[in-house]
Amino acid sequence: MRIITISREFGSGGREIGKRLADALNIAYYDREIITAIAKKSSLEEDYIERILESSVLKQYPVTFSRTITHISTITNNAPNLLAQQHKVIKELAAKGDCVIVGRGADIVLEEYQPLKLFVYADMTAKVDRCRERAISDEKLTDREFERKIKQVDKARASNHNFISSLAWGDKQGYHLCINTTEIEIKSIISPISAYSECWFERSKK
Amino acid sequence: MRIITISREFGSGGREIGKRLADALNIAYYDREIITAIAKKSSLEEDYIERILESSVLKQYPVTFSRTITHISTITNNAPNLLAQQHKVIKELAAKGDCVIVGRGADIVLEEYQPLKLFVYADMTAKVDRCRERAISDEKLTDREFERKIKQVDKARASNHNFISSLAWGDKQGYHLCINTTEIEIKSIISPISAYSECWFERSKK
Repeated sequence: MRIITISREFGSGGREIGKRLADALNIAYYDREIITAIAKKSSLEEDYIERILESSVLKQYPVTFSRTITHISTITNNAPNLLAQQHKVIKELAAKGDCVIVGRGADIVLEEYQPLKLFVYADMTAKVDRCRERAISDEKLTDREFERKIKQVDKARASNHNFISSLAWGDKQGYHLCINTTEIEIKSIISPISAYSECWFERSKK
Repeated sequence: MRIITISREFGSGGREIGKRLADALNIAYYDREIITAIAKKSSLEEDYIERILESSVLKQYPVTFSRTITHISTITNNAPNLLAQQHKVIKELAAKGDCVIVGRGADIVLEEYQPLKLFVYADMTAKVDRCRERAISDEKLTDREFERKIKQVDKARASNHNFISSLAWGDKQGYHLCINTTEIEIKSIISPISAYSECWFERSKK
């Protein structure tokens, strides 16, 4: 079974690598499908599920009371359940066969499949540039705001990863290949990364 | 100009990657040649030069006096000079044309050439295994001793790197591609890494 998990810094182009890599290897690609599957099984809206799962799991366990207690309670009640559902869906999808899964802690959840674990990262300037270029028209943020958003999203990703793993999110020791996309056009490196993946999976047959 | 620098944890196979990559790309490979060049220019023995350059530069500036003061003084007098000579030789070699240089701070020293910077690493167990397999017959160390040696060498490498760079040695942000050799046979990944390098240098022509 060839499972490739892609962990990535926000704005580094990890999703694009994932999609293109799945195409190149002619295997399934899972990303939004995971949310859709959870939505089908629950009575919740996709956007709501995504918002909960993308926020830090630690924030979902409030230690103080505040005026937003009702909202926090809702999150508290849903979050562990949604996380568990997400893990279940990821395992179900992986069981179907070869695939690329972007984010969502799949590198840890699918440990038993011995996935090839990639980490995609870039300099802050490159990530801000990428976010600006790809921003939807109603998302007019300044560079400083983009930078704040990148840090915020990555902080949540790190905290959610560290919740289920002993190795810190982004620590190269937890990945097989770490790719810095700062100075490159992503589509130009798909062919060697795809070849690298083939070699990597080949080794386990020996 | 295509310059590839390879930084690596001791025992991770970085030197083998460097050698094979240079062969695959049909470009020069520099490693021991640097020491030989320094020896030719100075009246010092190669082994002595290597020992000085591979120990931590920080240790070469003693803050306390001890019984070994004569020895320390010799190192103190030679070390900065040898480091400067090493940087000079690295620059002279790079100026000759495309090459792969392993270690010796070449990633920082050759910044002006915009080298492709690789970092090679592995789990401790894999590094100990590799050291044991490659140990020369009179180097019979226990696994624990190999582990101690690996940590010692890497500590010196880190300290020498951090002496000339603001980014910590091994921090993935300072490299373009970080390769974990834990579970792979090095010769099997040379072709994709070589292809990755070609793509990377190609991008700078655009």
